[in-house]
Formats: sequence, C-alpha cells, structure tokens
Amino acid sequence: MFVLEGVRLVADALESGATLTLVLYAPEQLQQTPAGLDLLQRLQRLPVGYAATPQVIASVADTVHPQGVVALARWPQIPPGKPGLILVIDAVQDPGNLGTLLRSAEAVGVAQTLCSVGTVDVYAPKVVRSAMGAHIRLSIEQDVRWDEIGERLADVDHVYAADPHARMPYYAADWRQPSALLVGNEAHGLSEAARRLATKPITIPMCGRAESLNVAVAASVILFEALRQRTLGRG
Amino acid sequence: MFVLEGVRLVADALESGATLTLVLYAPEQLQQTPAGLDLLQRLQRLPVGYAATPQVIASVADTVHPQGVVALARWPQIPPGKPGLILVIDAVQDPGNLGTLLRSAEAVGVAQTLCSVGTVDVYAPKVVRSAMGAHIRLSIEQDVRWDEIGERLADVDHVYAADPHARMPYYAADWRQPSALLVGNEAHGLSEAARRLATKPITIPMCGRAESLNVAVAASVILFEALRQRTLGRG
Repeated sequence: MFVLEGVRLVADALESGATLTLVLYAPEQLQQTPAGLDLLQRLQRLPVGYAATPQVIASVADTVHPQGVVALARWPQIPPGKPGLILVIDAVQDPGNLGTLLRSAEAVGVAQTLCSVGTVDVYAPKVVRSAMGAHIRLSIEQDVRWDEIGERLADVDHVYAADPHARMPYYAADWRQPSALLVGNEAHGLSEAARRLATKPITIPMCGRAESLNVAVAASVILFEALRQRTLGRG
Repeated sequence: MFVLEGVRLVADALESGATLTLVLYAPEQLQQTPAGLDLLQRLQRLPVGYAATPQVIASVADTVHPQGVVALARWPQIPPGKPGLILVIDAVQDPGNLGTLLRSAEAVGVAQTLCSVGTVDVYAPKVVRSAMGAHIRLSIEQDVRWDEIGERLADVDHVYAADPHARMPYYAADWRQPSALLVGNEAHGLSEAARRLATKPITIPMCGRAESLNVAVAASVILFEALRQRTLGRG
C-alpha cells in the first residue's frame, strides 16, 4: 500500500481506476477550490471515504500542507506495454530524482520501468509526490535482480546506457526499434552489472564545464529524444 | 555573498577563479579522500583559509554532512556570453528546481540567464548545491524587471516560451539563430508579462496521460534540443 496526498493525486487515482482502500478528507478544506469541491462530491459517494478534521489529516500526511485529503492505495499492478522503450533504473537514491524520472517516463510512454535492487523505495511518499501520478499509469517493478533484468531485455534490439565517458551522442542512437535505457546512481553512475548488460553506451554532449547532469534531467533528455525520433522518424 | 559547501563545489570555485572571502575546513575530514586531500593542500596556502573543528563547520553549514569544508564566496559577476541562447526564468519557486535548471543551462552553454522578480533567491544554499557549480560559470542576473527583460531580448530573433497549450513542438523551432527561452512557475506556468514577450509559444509533445513535466526537466529537454540543432544543424 502507499499514501497519496493532495487533491490532484487523489483525483488522478480515482480517474485511473486505482484501488483506494481508505480516504480521509476535510470537507471544509476541499470546498475552498473548484477542483477540491469536485473531488469532495466523488469522495462522499465512496464507501471507503471518511470525513475527518484537518488536524487528523495533517497528522497522517507526510507534507506540511496536505490540502485536505489523504488516501491509502494498493500498489497498482500495471502490465508492461507493447515492446517499445524499457527504462532500467540502477540504484537511484534521491526520492525527488526517482519521482521526477517516473513522471518523465510516463510522459514519453515508456512501456516498462524496472528498478534494480538498491533503488530507493518506489512507493516512498516523496517519490509518489514528485511523480505526480505516474505510479497509477506506469508499469513499474522494484527490487528486480540483475539476472531478471537481463531476461527482460532479451527481446530488445538495443540496450543503451547513459554514460558520461561514452562517445556516441544520445541523438545518434536509433530509438525507433524496441530498446532499453539504463540510468545509474547519482554519485557512482552505472553499476558493474548494468555495464555488462549495456551493449551501447551513449553520452549527452555538453558545452559548458559541467561534468554531469542531474540524473532525472539526463534520462529525460534521452527519453524525449527517443519520443521525437519515434514521432518524426530519425532526425 | 553566498555559501559553498563540500569538496567539489569549493574546489570548482577555486579552479574557476571565484573570490572566496572565508574558508573553514577540517583537515582530518578532508584527509579522508584523495579529492579532499588535494583541496586541503590548496586551502592551507590560502590567506582566507582557517582550520576548524568538524563541529564548527557543521554549525555553519546548511547540509547535514558538510564534508569538512565551507566557503563564503562573493557573488560572481560573469558577463553575458556572445548572443546565442538566453534563458529567462519566470518566478520558479522550488530551490532544487532552480538549481537543476541552472546546472543544465551551464551544460548547454547558455549565454545569459535572467531571473525575473519573484524567482526564488539564486544564491540560497539549496539552489547553489543543486546547481553543482553553475553559479561560478554562468552569467546570472536576478530580480530583473520585465521591462528590463524586454530590452535584453530586443536583439534576439525568436523568443520561445514553454507552454503546455502551444501547438508548435519544441523540435520544430529553429534554435540555430540567437534565441531566448522563457520558462514559468511550477504551478502557474508563464506570467502575463512573460506571455507578452513570447513571440513563439512551444510545447513538448507527450504520449502518456501526464499534463506537464517538472520545470527543470522541461527546460532541459528544450535546451538540449537547442544544443543538438546547433551541433548538427536542424534535425
């Protein structure tokens, strides 16, 4: 189970058909915005919805301003999409980075997201907040062992890995075929296990003196290039 | 003045010729890593460097683990580069987002960064940490009024603005000419003043159900497409 906080996340979860097992809401707080009022009307019809005081909700919530609604959701089991783009996350540690990464992955239509053993908990509250609803729509598996990841990548044409020391620019890669992208830990980059699977290391050419990018930014830059190529043909 | 914490940021600042007015360091902590030892040797020759206990450094630092070194630096005054890409940041509020944005801006070689009145303090410790040294190398001005921003953009061929409701994909824009990119607030998007300056609204096409991206991610995706076009010609 994991916790959803705030009007937008809970409304998103309801629309996506996620299974909510408990919802606590403060009617007087929700009434203050049009979106809140709309959600309130749906929550009042929900068998698992209970009105509560703002104090009770604040005590349950992780955020300082929980916006009058907190829900407990079952981990969604979303089956992987058709072979397209698989994202493999290798021991990313910062919850905000992981959430932002998942938000981008959902936005480009990643078919499957695999988080290696050692990645921060995908359902931690800060990850869920940064992901802005991606958990409800993206196929995510966590604590996946590297031998299992290897099996999942068996049918993929290219296994690209973001590596600052690589020579091939990410835009020279062909993203129109079924492919995978591996991204590594914020400080240490790709693990040995990830490197063994990566048939094609790619880099993001830069022209400043910066040596690296934020991991969520780097992955997003590459994922949106993949989407651009799939939309336009290779550029 | 602003505060730099950690081995990498302080070493970066020294290499970039930034003016440090005070450095406190704990020799026994710095000796624990090769990079720290290297920095220690330079700090011991610095007139403004003072050895201190880890307790003193931790009390001055903003982070929980300040890695044995804290420096006070003068705000660098870096002149804008040759006309190329100008980034205008319109009231971004989250320090982590602003820092990540600056880190990406430096990596693509943005010539000038203008932060509108209402943007979070560019020199706040969390911004500086997320920017990973961009402050020392990027031309940044903050609290710039919109009439001044208008004057700075007078010589630019295209003023693009990231707008989820726009029709033109960001990759259909021509980034090879001198141009500006405007990015807006996390929750409210572009202000009215920004919209008035933006001659060309652009969007990032997505294929999930996500309505928007993290602001630092969105700006980075567009900035790296600009760099890609400038490197390759238009794709």
